[in-house]
Amino acid sequence: MARVLTRQAEDFPRWYQDVLAKAQLAENGPVRGTMVIRPDGYALWERMQAEVDDRIKVDGARNAYFPLFIPESYLRREAKHVEGFSPELAVVTVGGGKELEEPVIVRPTSETIINASFAKWVQSYRDLPLLINQWANVVRWELRPRLFLRTTEFLWQEGHTAHATEAEAREYAIRILRDVYEDFMVDVLALPVVVGRKTARERFAGATNTMTLELMTGDGKALQMGTSHELGQNFARVFGIEFLAPSGQRDYAWQTSWGSSTRMVGGLIMAHGDDDGLRVPPRLAPTQVAVLVVKEAAREAAERLADDLRTAGVRVAVDAAADLPFGRRTVDWELKGVPLRVEVGPRDLAEDRVMLARRTSRTKAPVPLGGLVDAVRTALVKDQVALFAEAEQRRGARIADVKTVEDAAEAATGGWARVPWAELGVEGEARLAERSVSVRCLTRPDGSLPAAEDEPDLLAYCARAY
Amino acid sequence: MARVLTRQAEDFPRWYQDVLAKAQLAENGPVRGTMVIRPDGYALWERMQAEVDDRIKVDGARNAYFPLFIPESYLRREAKHVEGFSPELAVVTVGGGKELEEPVIVRPTSETIINASFAKWVQSYRDLPLLINQWANVVRWELRPRLFLRTTEFLWQEGHTAHATEAEAREYAIRILRDVYEDFMVDVLALPVVVGRKTARERFAGATNTMTLELMTGDGKALQMGTSHELGQNFARVFGIEFLAPSGQRDYAWQTSWGSSTRMVGGLIMAHGDDDGLRVPPRLAPTQVAVLVVKEAAREAAERLADDLRTAGVRVAVDAAADLPFGRRTVDWELKGVPLRVEVGPRDLAEDRVMLARRTSRTKAPVPLGGLVDAVRTALVKDQVALFAEAEQRRGARIADVKTVEDAAEAATGGWARVPWAELGVEGEARLAERSVSVRCLTRPDGSLPAAEDEPDLLAYCARAY
Repeated sequence: MARVLTRQAEDFPRWYQDVLAKAQLAENGPVRGTMVIRPDGYALWERMQAEVDDRIKVDGARNAYFPLFIPESYLRREAKHVEGFSPELAVVTVGGGKELEEPVIVRPTSETIINASFAKWVQSYRDLPLLINQWANVVRWELRPRLFLRTTEFLWQEGHTAHATEAEAREYAIRILRDVYEDFMVDVLALPVVVGRKTARERFAGATNTMTLELMTGDGKALQMGTSHELGQNFARVFGIEFLAPSGQRDYAWQTSWGSSTRMVGGLIMAHGDDDGLRVPPRLAPTQVAVLVVKEAAREAAERLADDLRTAGVRVAVDAAADLPFGRRTVDWELKGVPLRVEVGPRDLAEDRVMLARRTSRTKAPVPLGGLVDAVRTALVKDQVALFAEAEQRRGARIADVKTVEDAAEAATGGWARVPWAELGVEGEARLAERSVSVRCLTRPDGSLPAAEDEPDLLAYCARAY
Repeated sequence: MARVLTRQAEDFPRWYQDVLAKAQLAENGPVRGTMVIRPDGYALWERMQAEVDDRIKVDGARNAYFPLFIPESYLRREAKHVEGFSPELAVVTVGGGKELEEPVIVRPTSETIINASFAKWVQSYRDLPLLINQWANVVRWELRPRLFLRTTEFLWQEGHTAHATEAEAREYAIRILRDVYEDFMVDVLALPVVVGRKTARERFAGATNTMTLELMTGDGKALQMGTSHELGQNFARVFGIEFLAPSGQRDYAWQTSWGSSTRMVGGLIMAHGDDDGLRVPPRLAPTQVAVLVVKEAAREAAERLADDLRTAGVRVAVDAAADLPFGRRTVDWELKGVPLRVEVGPRDLAEDRVMLARRTSRTKAPVPLGGLVDAVRTALVKDQVALFAEAEQRRGARIADVKTVEDAAEAATGGWARVPWAELGVEGEARLAERSVSVRCLTRPDGSLPAAEDEPDLLAYCARAY
């Protein structure tokens, strides 16, 4: 049989494009760099949204919505911020048939416009902390677009908070990083992300500290899956977010911002996918089990089993297209990465059993009818764990501990390099950058977050990045 | 005590602005016509989204996402469509620091870009019906903006479908109108909308038939709360959405589109609000009950009661700010329109009771502790019904049955006019338009949907509209 997808080992980026197309996840929009997210791709994003949103709410932030259009002048107020974003902006110059007096920017991120509101809302310490999140689209003109990973328009959530002290702001930025992003990525996406601190070179434009979660993709590169920033008082000063402390003194608020985007869909595919397509972790999967009617005669039994599974809290789809070739149907479900497939045919039914196929391990075995619900539950739990373990093992095998720039660049051709930051330094970082390798993040030797870039004994994770 | 809000009877539009500001629902953004939706306003929209999304999924449509940016050339393909939207467009002419070769439009609606995808996805009758929904922001440059009702950028859902036959498309457009929009507006928003057919003059640009749900606001005007369109084969022809029928013949698909937006938040406020602020129907309310700690000593008991209510499935917020003036706190909860307030004070607790205040009826009575959960449940159900009844009664009282253009214009100064369409006709409609009165919709005498504008005995609902 002809292969549906390019093999990963042959051409990983092409394999990725093939999966997106064949599993009908996404395709290019007509304007360069834009993306159409098809229903099966969007369902993954909706599940991600629900899980991330729940966690954000537990951490106390409330959703709100701010305008897409930002006056050009707002962006100019924070010097590093405008410098960082200027090359990527989309500018509206005509509105309602007329040339605009002041052009407006399509938001690349919302620090400026949200902080202009914060300045109105914050008067006293009683108004703090102010914890806001927004689900929105943002636009950054992209010269080398890649679906989900880097698109001119993408969907994301961006959190923005204001606090009375630096310590509170720092604590909250870390809380979001750990309780929202890391918890979600590890527990739901089954992705062993490395959590660390960005170097000054890689910091968000306008932040005093950027913390990140870095994923190793199937081809040993790195993908930034989410970031949480301390903004210090930078934006508070330029937008005038001032509050009256209980002491009677006025002070500028301390701020954070943090975001995660549709890029996570790309990361999921690149980390868990195999030569047969996507593999979706059971806890995320919009459809956890596909129940296939092998022959029309088995349809009623299949519907009953599907109902049993739904009653047990499993997310189920029934594939009743018994008139289509069976092989094509199973290939399609494998492409889409649905964790389990229950094949219900008259011959198996006659023996009081069905076939249970597991996408993660590519195994298939008969299960007695009465034991199906338990077997499905067990497989969903095990395969969630197995996907994480597999990704973690790859990561372990593909990180090389090295000491020199030369060795780091070499290691980064097929994996990551871990280098003592003291050996590398900003100079070594610059030399790696010339070879398209970046320092993805810094961690302490025990893996915990550094409080500063100049702590002793820090480790730098270096890789080529998507 | 000074009034917090302008009285409705004094100046309704100003009352509306006051409610939005004082209840902290929304405010103007810096770019003219844009809107900041604050957390309490956004929470209403999130609940609306959840309820509408559930209903859309039940009707079989799947969510997807299409680009914000549309090539200018796409919009030009459907003549009436471009004519309708041209005056309202926002145009991006600069991207990534460069003048664009072809300017791109910020989507005012997505028929063109979605149908370009449909043309790729639809080949055979097996691909139909194709039922897609999108939650997104859209932009229509607005010269007379009004928060929630008419903003340059607004949030909405837009559904787009393709079918094999005209009858199927029509049936689906009606199904969305009834099962999604009407059911949601009546059952959740407690709004007695009039469901009817738009006249040719009021039809969506590019549609063959537009159906609408019209709301009477507190000042007797009309607000279009949602629309469902039959597009015939108009877009299918220009974008080439062709399919192979089982017969072997090729045909263009028959299409629908339908939308509802953040305007519904404005409608909710304008229909249920009173001189003390917003009144949110219990089934919608993000917070159904505010439990007030009257004095600090009652805090623990209040938290326990709140937990009991949560366990019973009620959405609860605890207001423990016992150090703030009690009067200010109750005024705030009334402003925000939370349906019920449970006041927990030490003196009442000593008598094994709490006070239950109902926002809809402005009544307040003691309730024994042991009976609180039941009393809350009963009040939530009753007040949902009461809000609908009140709005329905107002609508009944303010619709005048008249026969002439003159009388219709007169009736529309403080309510709606219902006029036999045969008496009015397109000429009468044009004369009413000169006086800022429009035909909101046509219905049959029994209230059902006309299949055509020239059916006999149709009634025209005429009003000034927001």
